[in-house]
Amino acid sequence: MANTTSKQWILSDRTTSLPTISGPKPTFTLSTAELPPLQEGQLLVQVRYFSNDAGIRTFISCTVDQERMYVPPVPIGAPMRAGLLGEVLESKSPDFKSGDFVFAGSGSWAEKIVVNAADVQLTPPLPSGLSMTHYLGAFGGTGLTAHVGLLHVAQAKPEHTIVVSAAAGATGSMVVQVAVKLLGAKRVVGIAGGPEKCAWVRDYLGAHACVDYKSPTFKEDLKAATPDEVDIFFDNVGGPVLDGVLARMKRYGVVAVCGSVATYSSDEPMALRNWFEIVSQRLTLKGFFIFDHMDKVPEAREALIKAAAEGRIKVDIEQVVPAKIEEVPNVWIDVLKGVNKGKSVTKLIA
Amino acid sequence: MANTTSKQWILSDRTTSLPTISGPKPTFTLSTAELPPLQEGQLLVQVRYFSNDAGIRTFISCTVDQERMYVPPVPIGAPMRAGLLGEVLESKSPDFKSGDFVFAGSGSWAEKIVVNAADVQLTPPLPSGLSMTHYLGAFGGTGLTAHVGLLHVAQAKPEHTIVVSAAAGATGSMVVQVAVKLLGAKRVVGIAGGPEKCAWVRDYLGAHACVDYKSPTFKEDLKAATPDEVDIFFDNVGGPVLDGVLARMKRYGVVAVCGSVATYSSDEPMALRNWFEIVSQRLTLKGFFIFDHMDKVPEAREALIKAAAEGRIKVDIEQVVPAKIEEVPNVWIDVLKGVNKGKSVTKLIA
Repeated sequence: MANTTSKQWILSDRTTSLPTISGPKPTFTLSTAELPPLQEGQLLVQVRYFSNDAGIRTFISCTVDQERMYVPPVPIGAPMRAGLLGEVLESKSPDFKSGDFVFAGSGSWAEKIVVNAADVQLTPPLPSGLSMTHYLGAFGGTGLTAHVGLLHVAQAKPEHTIVVSAAAGATGSMVVQVAVKLLGAKRVVGIAGGPEKCAWVRDYLGAHACVDYKSPTFKEDLKAATPDEVDIFFDNVGGPVLDGVLARMKRYGVVAVCGSVATYSSDEPMALRNWFEIVSQRLTLKGFFIFDHMDKVPEAREALIKAAAEGRIKVDIEQVVPAKIEEVPNVWIDVLKGVNKGKSVTKLIA
Repeated sequence: MANTTSKQWILSDRTTSLPTISGPKPTFTLSTAELPPLQEGQLLVQVRYFSNDAGIRTFISCTVDQERMYVPPVPIGAPMRAGLLGEVLESKSPDFKSGDFVFAGSGSWAEKIVVNAADVQLTPPLPSGLSMTHYLGAFGGTGLTAHVGLLHVAQAKPEHTIVVSAAAGATGSMVVQVAVKLLGAKRVVGIAGGPEKCAWVRDYLGAHACVDYKSPTFKEDLKAATPDEVDIFFDNVGGPVLDGVLARMKRYGVVAVCGSVATYSSDEPMALRNWFEIVSQRLTLKGFFIFDHMDKVPEAREALIKAAAEGRIKVDIEQVVPAKIEEVPNVWIDVLKGVNKGKSVTKLIA
């Protein structure tokens, strides 16, 4: 009965360091679960692709009080939560049929899942040449976060100098493209780790400049790359990168605070030397999530799909990694290590 | 010729620690200057009161690039800049006459100063029972910053829980009173150092609660004092106090960032464990200065003077310290040490 069991990864430890699946205290443990019988309104879904988001790190351990988390942490002993794209194998919902592709934002690291139809969205076929995996990247959480965060939350304008951290990352690579190609911003500067990523941000994504935060001359390089200072900083990272950009913000500048990947696997507090710039330059910092701006999503997705179909933005920036269920956590852990460029997607193979 | 010379304090070292007037590297050095002859449009002013503002610490040394400072730093060898209230001794301006009281925001630590009439404001007589020194406190920079910052920048509403750091300080003591007595906020919680200051914030200023940040149970005490979390945080301090309040902010809460006195005399970076709350709770942080909101000042000052004249707010929260010119820096240094409650004013005596 192939459809009655599924291997799945269980959260077994709330590490505050880099997660692992080996050693005396593995973060995740593989087990085989009996799938519950389908109820009315439910779907049995075969997972095809996992979305490897750095942000799900906060479901394991996080400095935020658990009771105050926007989404509660994953309980110890429960399957690890993850976004995924899957194919409907069986439907007890009138809204879906077998063979439909669906996005489950709160799926889990499993081969098959039983979900409520209300908790998934249909992902309709895309124009020719575009892959369904873009629903996890350019047309999914990262692309929408980039578009809505930059244009609506940060209110970026064509006359602005825009800086983007983790510019080679899943969200950052879309922010750079939205800023350069859809907004037409005067100057777009990426920040990324290492010369190879920086070259990609410049040459492939189209940033006017990209600064290597690992360079000993980061501070000077950032200053040279932002001669007119910085109107908008789209920050995915926090930490020393944020600290460096604070010292380059223009008066009345805006920091869109999207994430702080520098803190996710660290017990150290974030150390900021340049906090006083917030007062001195009268900056506004805005934490945001795409969930609060769902009214902007249809328009943003349409704009992104249209731009991609016309070749104005590059959406082949997903790194699709084929992996058996046994390797699923490790592909995601690579994202935390900063191994990838662009969006990381796991293609689940047998 | 008593009116041709003046003792004045010269900035002699950019210390990043607590300033001092003794030891091998004094921050300030007393000297006697020849006063220049009065030009057309200038005034000779006898200083009566100095405003002891923590913020002028940033004119000595500051993490912000000097070229990016909102007001440039004081040059080494120049008189230390300070706000003051003085009496016109001689006027070559049609707008002022001998005997007028004026406020000079960019005065200096001297007995007498020669200023351009355009750089000072007349401080008209106040209703009976109110002291001219209030032009340096409740009706001056600190009171106006409190009123405009809380009601206009942070957009505080009566239904809000409002937390104020340095609540026994010059600005904080006015924020507490504006929140409780003018706005009528649901819950106003001060944060101050030590049980005596906390008792004063509660019993004299009228806060619903005050939490001692020096207590080992600060975190738990703050949680207990904010059962409905925090809508608005008016922060004068930064550092561990800010870090603690970030973990109590309500979703979509606002932090009005007025200052960061915790960093002014420290070489250490600000260490924040709870930065991710900005994303998790979708907070907005707004750095601000009263200078950007001068259009709100006349209305704010009128409201404060009216409330004080009617006895609705307490303005006798100035600590007026009589001091000879030789002691002027030390009275100000006490503010940095957190010795005072309310606004510190130096009354210059012969």
